Amino acid sequence: MALSDLRAVARNEEGIAAVLGILKQRLGERFQTGQAMREQHGHTTTYIPTQAPDGVAFAQSAGEVQEVVRICAAHRVPVIPFGVGTSLEGHVNAPGGGISIDLSGLNRILSVNAEDLDCTVEAGVTREALNQHLRDTGLFFPIDPGANATLGGMAATRASGTNAVRYGTMRENVLALTAVMAGGSEIATGRRARKSSAGYDLTRLLVGSEGTLGVITTLTLKLYGIPQAISGGVCPFPSVEAACNAVIMTIQMGIPVARIELVNALQMRAMKTYSKLDYPESPCLFVEFHGSEAGVKEQAESFGEIAAEHGGGPFLWTTVAEERAKLWKARHDAYWASQTLRPGAKGLSTDVCVPISRLAECIAETEADIAATGLVAPIVGHVGDGNFHVLVLMDVNDPREIARAEEFVARLNLRAIGMDGTCTGEHGIGQGKMAFLEREHGAAVEVMRAVKLALDPDGIMNPGKILPMPA
Amino acid sequence: MALSDLRAVARNEEGIAAVLGILKQRLGERFQTGQAMREQHGHTTTYIPTQAPDGVAFAQSAGEVQEVVRICAAHRVPVIPFGVGTSLEGHVNAPGGGISIDLSGLNRILSVNAEDLDCTVEAGVTREALNQHLRDTGLFFPIDPGANATLGGMAATRASGTNAVRYGTMRENVLALTAVMAGGSEIATGRRARKSSAGYDLTRLLVGSEGTLGVITTLTLKLYGIPQAISGGVCPFPSVEAACNAVIMTIQMGIPVARIELVNALQMRAMKTYSKLDYPESPCLFVEFHGSEAGVKEQAESFGEIAAEHGGGPFLWTTVAEERAKLWKARHDAYWASQTLRPGAKGLSTDVCVPISRLAECIAETEADIAATGLVAPIVGHVGDGNFHVLVLMDVNDPREIARAEEFVARLNLRAIGMDGTCTGEHGIGQGKMAFLEREHGAAVEVMRAVKLALDPDGIMNPGKILPMPA
Repeated sequence: MALSDLRAVARNEEGIAAVLGILKQRLGERFQTGQAMREQHGHTTTYIPTQAPDGVAFAQSAGEVQEVVRICAAHRVPVIPFGVGTSLEGHVNAPGGGISIDLSGLNRILSVNAEDLDCTVEAGVTREALNQHLRDTGLFFPIDPGANATLGGMAATRASGTNAVRYGTMRENVLALTAVMAGGSEIATGRRARKSSAGYDLTRLLVGSEGTLGVITTLTLKLYGIPQAISGGVCPFPSVEAACNAVIMTIQMGIPVARIELVNALQMRAMKTYSKLDYPESPCLFVEFHGSEAGVKEQAESFGEIAAEHGGGPFLWTTVAEERAKLWKARHDAYWASQTLRPGAKGLSTDVCVPISRLAECIAETEADIAATGLVAPIVGHVGDGNFHVLVLMDVNDPREIARAEEFVARLNLRAIGMDGTCTGEHGIGQGKMAFLEREHGAAVEVMRAVKLALDPDGIMNPGKILPMPA
Repeated sequence: MALSDLRAVARNEEGIAAVLGILKQRLGERFQTGQAMREQHGHTTTYIPTQAPDGVAFAQSAGEVQEVVRICAAHRVPVIPFGVGTSLEGHVNAPGGGISIDLSGLNRILSVNAEDLDCTVEAGVTREALNQHLRDTGLFFPIDPGANATLGGMAATRASGTNAVRYGTMRENVLALTAVMAGGSEIATGRRARKSSAGYDLTRLLVGSEGTLGVITTLTLKLYGIPQAISGGVCPFPSVEAACNAVIMTIQMGIPVARIELVNALQMRAMKTYSKLDYPESPCLFVEFHGSEAGVKEQAESFGEIAAEHGGGPFLWTTVAEERAKLWKARHDAYWASQTLRPGAKGLSTDVCVPISRLAECIAETEADIAATGLVAPIVGHVGDGNFHVLVLMDVNDPREIARAEEFVARLNLRAIGMDGTCTGEHGIGQGKMAFLEREHGAAVEVMRAVKLALDPDGIMNPGKILPMPA
């Protein structure tokens, strides 16, 4: 089974030529066709080869997005939305050519409603820019996939990250959005009410649709009060299984853990060197609790007891911000640390998610598979959700090595699906995981395809992603 | 503006006659066509007139649901899913006739996965039956819309209730489901992983689709540990505004309140008499906190301080189960208590939801409207979400009174929509609120219609609900 699906989408040369001419005239300098710019917009952060668009339109408003989509629609030319390009599964590639709409100019924070704990932002605002803007309000937006992605891109891939175990994913945190659909109309999927039973949930239909149904232009997001107190620390365990069992008990006891991250022994070895951490080279949990002063102390103590019951410890924790910051910087630098395990190699980052009762088994089988395949591939995981990542470090100039890595990832995906899990917890399908969608969803893929055909009959919205379409 | 949309859906007499014959033969006694049975299955708990189906099929399995849908599809005859019939907006009416599929026979609890905090149940299981089944596991399912509805019905209307402020609604608590689609195929929308980025979110598309896209047959639901401790109590306030401001501060401070219910002065008067409560006849908040012993004490104390800051109090709270039970029984009996305000009247129960910053204003305007219109209409609300209910007590034999009530409800819906809210927070659109869908969603209604046409091209799935379709 080939891992990524790079089958070319048929190019509409005539339409593309027409659109290039029109957009040059309409947008002037804000329409770019130079090779470097085009390649940068087809560039992905994985090993998947770049498929550059034919031009890049730098939109400044939802109205301009509409205009570009209408021009492309009139000539049946593909439209590929682009945030900052941190997606991992080839989402911004242009297999049939077409126009990349760069949304970084849609960077206005339109409103912050502190009383309602929500805000409305344009799709090109990054999560760090939003949190920077919120710094004096006592509020924050918790979803943190690692990269400083745009909020539109995070919604499009249904991103999550370390805080999801407590605050949910983009699925739970987008209250409403506006999007430009394939015909060029802009729709609003909802309002600022916290809940609604009025009609089909188009918000959730667009969240995770990876640009294949519409281009997200604004988002109304839930915000949270910055916790009064935070405690956190690191706890080593004798095995992945022991760590996972501690996670299960923590969740089951209802301890409202804000982050609970597994780092396997190989990854700890890399982090010890890279981030100068003084912990054993064994599986560790990085945990954090948010709440009142008394609450976070109680939670940390309860977790420590659970860890000890499972042979883990010592659990060293602190409420001092600087000490916590060092730990989380180490966790966030895991990607860079892992590069030191094989200098010069490129990382293939993949993710799966399983019910947490199957997590220990899934990780153990995966570690055994890595060892048997002879790969260098550390593991980190948002284990409160049952979600983990494997970073396969490989020589991208060696086709046999790529093939071995792809075969490993295919086995990993099927293993997760076989354990009642999913082939991606937070990266999305893109091009990289199209081969597994049908294995996971069966007949439901036909329903997805019917929705896609109904909303994008000419197949211009980010074609060649998520769903293999009939030619 | 007419409140409920009872425009007849064209009857397919020939198809209906054929289906009646086939189903009688296939299902025998489990297919009923007696008038009383038919009317009971078109009966709604509001004043909306009954539109009985032509027959009621008592399915015992998803396979039988598929069979009935296939037979109906072959003859283009409407299919109306039926749980226990507690919906409030005419969802189970059969404006074009057709077959009601009674799902009460799909009442098996298929699995409880305590380690993963989830379970899989058939759609006809009621929420009380599920919680009864869970009683020895230390787990519970929190969503409580008041009525002992089926979980399939609760998913279909995107129900919520008193606990939603902490635990979310059906939107957040259905992990995955299976549904029989218009063509008769059964799809599974997801697996047991807590999160997934694999393809379109068909789970959320079907949750809240009110039977218009498919018949939900099984659900995988999130479960929660029964809290170690619960504290709760009642706090009077000098005005609705003061109570709402206390709610806003409680939410904003991040106090993880499990329930926070507003009862207005008129409703308190009814409850004092009916449930023998010793509280003043002023707006009150009923609140509850879930957590550790220390946590729920801290939360109750913090809330008491907030209430006092807003002129509320005394806040009398307890952790004693019997005392809490009495309070919540009174809250749950609010509907019956309100009947005593106008004996013999029938209640029109309507709901809206607004951003909480607008809640005080919305309720105050609504109380003034009620007074000006001369209605008897107490208010209760799940105010942590900005959601409130008005129960208009009316003489259903007086058309002028019905018209006045409908006009009031229309103003209420438009008021909520005008405040960036929704015309229904938890009851759904059904027939009763179709007139407001376009006012709320604008061009997005066209997208909903495209999805409906794609998935149900012959319009057999619960026709005449949610979306006005072209004839």
